[in-house]
Amino acid sequence: MTSTAIDVQVVPSFVQDEWWTPESAAANPTEVRDASTGEILALVSTDGLDIAAAVEHGRTVGHRGLAGLTFHQRSLKLKELAQYLNGRRKELYEISARTGATKIDSLVDIDGGIGVLFTFGSKGRRELPNSTVVIDGAAEVLSKDGSFIGEHVYTSIPGVAVQINAFNFPVWGMLEKFAPAFIAGVPTIVKPATPTGYLSEAAVRMMIESGILPAGSLQLISGSARDLLDHLDYRDMVSFTGSASTANKLKNHTNVIEGGVRFTSETDSLNASILGPDAVPGTPEFDAYVKSLVTEMTVKAGQKCTSIRRAIVPKALVNDVVAAAAKRIEERVVLGDPRAEGVTMGALASVEQRDGVRSSVQALLDAGAKIAFGSLDAPESVQADGSRGVAEDGAFMAPVLLTWDDPNAEALHSVEAFGPVASVVGYEDTNDAVRLAALGGGSLVATVCSNDPQTVRELVTGIAGHHGRVHVLNRETARTSTGHGSPVPHLVHGGPGRAGGGEELGGIRAVKHHMQRTAIQGSPNMLTAITGVWHTGADQFFDETHPFRKDLSTLKVGDAMASELREVTLEDITAFANSTGDTFYAHTNQEAAEANPFFPGIVAHGYLLLSWGAGLFVEPAPGPVLANYGLENLRFITPVAAGDSIRVTLTAKKITPRETDEYGEVAWDAVLHNQNDEIVATYDVLTLVEKKRA
Amino acid sequence: MTSTAIDVQVVPSFVQDEWWTPESAAANPTEVRDASTGEILALVSTDGLDIAAAVEHGRTVGHRGLAGLTFHQRSLKLKELAQYLNGRRKELYEISARTGATKIDSLVDIDGGIGVLFTFGSKGRRELPNSTVVIDGAAEVLSKDGSFIGEHVYTSIPGVAVQINAFNFPVWGMLEKFAPAFIAGVPTIVKPATPTGYLSEAAVRMMIESGILPAGSLQLISGSARDLLDHLDYRDMVSFTGSASTANKLKNHTNVIEGGVRFTSETDSLNASILGPDAVPGTPEFDAYVKSLVTEMTVKAGQKCTSIRRAIVPKALVNDVVAAAAKRIEERVVLGDPRAEGVTMGALASVEQRDGVRSSVQALLDAGAKIAFGSLDAPESVQADGSRGVAEDGAFMAPVLLTWDDPNAEALHSVEAFGPVASVVGYEDTNDAVRLAALGGGSLVATVCSNDPQTVRELVTGIAGHHGRVHVLNRETARTSTGHGSPVPHLVHGGPGRAGGGEELGGIRAVKHHMQRTAIQGSPNMLTAITGVWHTGADQFFDETHPFRKDLSTLKVGDAMASELREVTLEDITAFANSTGDTFYAHTNQEAAEANPFFPGIVAHGYLLLSWGAGLFVEPAPGPVLANYGLENLRFITPVAAGDSIRVTLTAKKITPRETDEYGEVAWDAVLHNQNDEIVATYDVLTLVEKKRA
Repeated sequence: MTSTAIDVQVVPSFVQDEWWTPESAAANPTEVRDASTGEILALVSTDGLDIAAAVEHGRTVGHRGLAGLTFHQRSLKLKELAQYLNGRRKELYEISARTGATKIDSLVDIDGGIGVLFTFGSKGRRELPNSTVVIDGAAEVLSKDGSFIGEHVYTSIPGVAVQINAFNFPVWGMLEKFAPAFIAGVPTIVKPATPTGYLSEAAVRMMIESGILPAGSLQLISGSARDLLDHLDYRDMVSFTGSASTANKLKNHTNVIEGGVRFTSETDSLNASILGPDAVPGTPEFDAYVKSLVTEMTVKAGQKCTSIRRAIVPKALVNDVVAAAAKRIEERVVLGDPRAEGVTMGALASVEQRDGVRSSVQALLDAGAKIAFGSLDAPESVQADGSRGVAEDGAFMAPVLLTWDDPNAEALHSVEAFGPVASVVGYEDTNDAVRLAALGGGSLVATVCSNDPQTVRELVTGIAGHHGRVHVLNRETARTSTGHGSPVPHLVHGGPGRAGGGEELGGIRAVKHHMQRTAIQGSPNMLTAITGVWHTGADQFFDETHPFRKDLSTLKVGDAMASELREVTLEDITAFANSTGDTFYAHTNQEAAEANPFFPGIVAHGYLLLSWGAGLFVEPAPGPVLANYGLENLRFITPVAAGDSIRVTLTAKKITPRETDEYGEVAWDAVLHNQNDEIVATYDVLTLVEKKRA
Repeated sequence: MTSTAIDVQVVPSFVQDEWWTPESAAANPTEVRDASTGEILALVSTDGLDIAAAVEHGRTVGHRGLAGLTFHQRSLKLKELAQYLNGRRKELYEISARTGATKIDSLVDIDGGIGVLFTFGSKGRRELPNSTVVIDGAAEVLSKDGSFIGEHVYTSIPGVAVQINAFNFPVWGMLEKFAPAFIAGVPTIVKPATPTGYLSEAAVRMMIESGILPAGSLQLISGSARDLLDHLDYRDMVSFTGSASTANKLKNHTNVIEGGVRFTSETDSLNASILGPDAVPGTPEFDAYVKSLVTEMTVKAGQKCTSIRRAIVPKALVNDVVAAAAKRIEERVVLGDPRAEGVTMGALASVEQRDGVRSSVQALLDAGAKIAFGSLDAPESVQADGSRGVAEDGAFMAPVLLTWDDPNAEALHSVEAFGPVASVVGYEDTNDAVRLAALGGGSLVATVCSNDPQTVRELVTGIAGHHGRVHVLNRETARTSTGHGSPVPHLVHGGPGRAGGGEELGGIRAVKHHMQRTAIQGSPNMLTAITGVWHTGADQFFDETHPFRKDLSTLKVGDAMASELREVTLEDITAFANSTGDTFYAHTNQEAAEANPFFPGIVAHGYLLLSWGAGLFVEPAPGPVLANYGLENLRFITPVAAGDSIRVTLTAKKITPRETDEYGEVAWDAVLHNQNDEIVATYDVLTLVEKKRA
C-alpha cells in the first residue's frame, strides 16, 4: 500500500465565504482511503475552525442574501446551478470512483443530485408565489360580518439549516437537503461524512465557483462538527442522515431537548419487500420482484438506507425466491474496482464498513439465520488493471442471502447489515405479511409486489402507518418504476420509528419544513397587506381604467371592475340549451326542474352564467391580458331563474410575474351577484398578463 | 377550613372501558382544594392502575372501533357529542366555579371546548373524504408514459394519542386534543392536571354516558401517569401542555429519543403585544390595545399560556399605556369568589399557584422591574356570601403591571409569572420592536396593533418566524376579533422554541398530525385501488348505461362515458361572442388574434368549450344527478380554432356519499380532446347525486 499516487491534503472547509484548512499539522487529522485500493486519499480535520462564527454568518449574511430573492429567483438559481454542475459531471465521476462507486452508483449520486436541483428549480417556480411568503390553506372567516378572518402563512425560519449527511451519497445527500433549504430562504451549513466528504467538497467547490449563490447561503464543514449544536437554538434546524445511534446522541443535546432546535432525522431501516400470494414463479411480478431484490443488494454494494433487508414472501415461495435471486446474482454481478471494465458492483466505502457488515451478518447467524447464498469470506474481485484476485486492502464483500426458520426472530427485524445482504422470510397470509413488515419498527420504504388490486389495497393500507413510502410493483410498472430504493424529489423520503421520524424531499413540502407556519388573524385589508394577495372584504379600487388594460407594471392587487346587471330570459336559456346541446332537464323542463330539490323551476345553465360573466367583465380590444388559461374554485351558490339578472365584480387577487418570460399569471376573484345582491357564483379566473405593454 | 361540604372521594379513572378507583385507602392520594375557599374537594391517585393495559386496549379495541367508522361518521359523532354536552353545560359550570373560574372563564373553557367539537364535527365532513384514507396533494407523474405515478396519503397512526393537559382549561384543553385524534381514528388516553382534573372527569363521564363513543376510543387517567411513557413507541403520540420543565423531562424519555414516540408540546411563552407607532392615545387602536391587555391579565386570572406578558409599546407611550390600563383595571375588575354576584376576576387555581406567581414577580423585581400598578400583598376579595375581605385560604391575587428601565433585561423575556401580571416596555422603532418580541425565544401568539398596513406588514413578517399565531388588531377588528388569547379551532395553536414547538388545532391540519403521511408509488390502477379515487391512466368502464343514470348505490369510480366529436365553426364562435357579450379580440379579430403569442388566429372561447363539453356529456332526462354545483382545476391546454372539433370523456373520480342527506358529491374527471387527440382542456365537474334513485 502506498500513498504517493495522490498528493495527500487536508480537505478544506468553506465558512464565512472563505476556504479554510487547519493552520498546523498538529491538527491530528483523520485519514481517508480509496475504497478499492486502501490508498490514502486525503486528511480531514476541523481543529481550530470557528463554528460559532459560521452559524452567526448564516443567520446574518446568509439570511440577508436569501431574503433579497423571491422563491422564483431562488428556484431559478437552483436551475442554473444544476446546469453548471451538469457541465462538470465528469470531474465528479472521477472522484466518485474512489469511494467504491460504479458508474451506475455515481449516476444515482451525482446525476441524481443534479436532478433534485432541476426538480426543485422547476417546482419552486410552478408551485410557489413569486414572493417570500406562502399562504397555507384557505382563509377562515372568524366573525359573522367577515371583518375578522384568519389564515396561515409560511415564512423562512430565522436560523440556519445544518445538514449532517451520511457517507453513501456524498453528492445527492447534500443537494437533496440544500435545494429545499435554499428555496425556503434558509442558509445551509453542510457537514458531510468523513469517509467520502472529499467528493462533497469537490461539489461544493464547483457550486461556489459557479458564482451563482448569494453570500452566506452555503457553508461546508469538512470533518467533525465538534461543538456545532452548542451554537444552535429554536431558530435553527438540523437534518441528520446516518445511524440511529448518532441521531439519538444528537437528539439528546440540551439545545434539542430544551432549546427547541428543530431536529429531523433519516436513519437506516430494515425495509421490507412483500411478494403477493398471486405473484408466483412465471408471473411478471415474480420476475420484477427478484430483479428489484438483487438490484437493491448490489447498487452501492447495498449501502443504501432504502435497500431491501427483508424479503417477505409467501411461505411456499421462499426457496423459489432464493434460487431465482441467487441465479440472477451469479449471472449479473461482477465485483471489483469501479475503474475496471465490466464491474457491476463496487466496494463498500471502507474496510471498517466491510468489517461492520460482516459482524452484523454474524449477529444474524447467531440469532438463527442461515446463509442460503454467498459467504462472508473475502471474495475475488476485479482490480483496476483487470486482473482478478482477493484484494487485501479493498473493502469488497459478495452478496449474501439469509433464510430463517423463525420469521419472528427479533434480530431479523432489528439488526441491519449495511451492505449486500438480505433475508428471505415466509409469511402465512396477508395479515401476517403486514405484521412482519411492521416488526421493523418503522421503515423508510416497502415494496408491495402483486397484480391483484385487493391484495395491494390490503397490504398497502395495512403497512402505510409504519412507512414513509410504499412502492407498488406489478406488470404495469415493472419497466417504468423508478425503483424500490430510489427516493424521488417529488415524494417524501423518510419514515417513522426506526427510520428516524423525519421527512425529506416531497416537493414543496420539503421547502415548507424549512419555514415556520404561523396563523395570522386580522381584517381582510391587513391580511392583504401581509400576504400581497387580495382577500374578500378588503378594499377594491375601481378607477376609470379597466383592470384588463393594466400591465403588470401598473396593476395592483385590489384593482377591480364591476359590471351592470344583465337580465336572463327564458329565451336566453332555451337558446343556450339549443346551441350548446346542454338540454339537461333543469334548463328545459319546468315540471321536472321544480321537482329538483335545489331549483325553483327552470334555471340558467351554470355555464351560461360563466359565459355571460366573461361577457360582462371582458375588455375586448387587444391589451396586456393575453389569455384566460384556466379557472379555479367555482361554486354555484344561488340558482338564476328566468327573469333574474346577474352582474359581475372582478378583482385582481394574486399577481405572479415570471422571471423568465415577458408576462406572468394574474388570478382574478370573480363574483356573480343577482338583482337582489345575493351571490350567484364565486370563482377565480386565471389569466396571463404582459409585464409591460408595448 | 372544613371539608364537610362535599363528600371527599377519589376521582375515578376510566380505562379499558371501565371506571376505576384505587382499591385501598393506602393509595396515598393527593388532596385537591377549592380555589376560592381552600376546602378539600377530592382526592387523586392512580396507585395500582394498569397503565400498560390501557395502552394495549387503545391500540387494539380502540383502533378496531374507530377503524370501522369513516371520517364523516367520526365527525358526525363529534357533533352529536357536542349537542349532548351542550345539554349538560350547567352541571359543568357548577363544578367549574370550584376551580376559581368566573362564568366568563367557564364559558371559555366549557363552551369553548364544546365549540371545538362542533367545528371539527363540521370540518371533518366538509373537508375530508367519507373514507379512512386522505390524499395529500397532487399525483406526480414519474414515468414518461404515465404508467408509474406517485402521491401521498395519510392513514391513522397505529398507536394511541396520549394527551397530558394543563390545569387551566380542564374541558377545552381536553376536547381540543380529543376531537382531531378521534376524527383521525386514533384512540385517546387523556391525563388531566391534578388540581382541576375533577372537572375533566365530569366531562369524560358525560361523554361515556352519552353512549356515542366506540369502545376504547377514550380512556382517562385521573392522577399521575406514572410509567405511561415506558409503554409507548413510534406508533403512539404524546401531546403535552404545561410547563417547559415537565415537557423537557418527558422529551428526555428514552422512548421519545430512541423509541420514536411522536412528541408535541405546547408550553407557556412570554407572549408580546406590540403597539404600532401610529396607535397613539385617542386612536381606536390605542383603546383596543389597552382593553386587550387588561382582558388578557384578568380572564382566568391571567393563567393562560397565551396571556400577554410583554406589552411592547413606543418608548414615548409607556406611561400612557400603564395609566390607561391601570384606569381600566380600577374601573372594571372585581376580584372574588366566582360564585358571588358581580365578580369579574376569580382566584388562581390554588394557593401553590399563587405563591409561584408571587415568587416569579419577585424574581422580575430583583432583575430590575418596578411595580407600576398593583401589589403583591394579599388582596381584598368578594366572598361567596358577598362580603369583602382578605380570604386567607383563597388563591387570590390582584393585577400587577411592571415597567423596566432596561428593555433588554434577560428576565423580562424569560421569567413568566403565570397570573395577572404583565410588563410594559418601550421600543425605539419597528425593527427594535421585532427584536424585542423575538427575545421571547419563540411564543404562542403576539398581537400587532396598528392601523397602518405598512407597519403591520413589517411587524408581522418580522416576527412571524418566532410565533405560532399573530393577531392583528385595528379599528376594523376591534369589535369582531376573537381576541389575542383565544386559540380558535380553525387556526394552529402552538409556537416554536419556548412555546414548545408543537401545533394543535388548525382545522384538519390537527387531524393530519395524528396520521402518517406515506408516499405511494405505483400504477394508476393500483393508486386507484388504494385510495378509492380514480387516477388518470387507470381503467375506465364504458358500459351501455350513461354514468349520469347511476345512483350512488351503483356508480363506481372509473365509470365513464365518451362523446362523439363536434365541429366548432367560425359561425359558432361569432354567435357565442354575440350572445354572451364576450367579444374579446381573440374570438372576433383574426389579425389581433394572430398577433397573440398563444393563438393561431381566432379561437373558440374557453367558456364555449366548457358549455359544449356539458352539452356533449349531459344526460338530459331527470335522473340521479341533481345538480352541477361547481368546477375545479380547469386548465385550457390546446386552443381550438374554427374548423377544429372537440369531444369529451367523463369519468367518475371521487364519490362522497353524505351521512345526513339522501345524496352525496361526485367529482367527475372531464377531458376535452380535439380531432387530433390532443388535450384541449382538463377539469373536474362537481355534482350532487342521489344515493338511491326512487
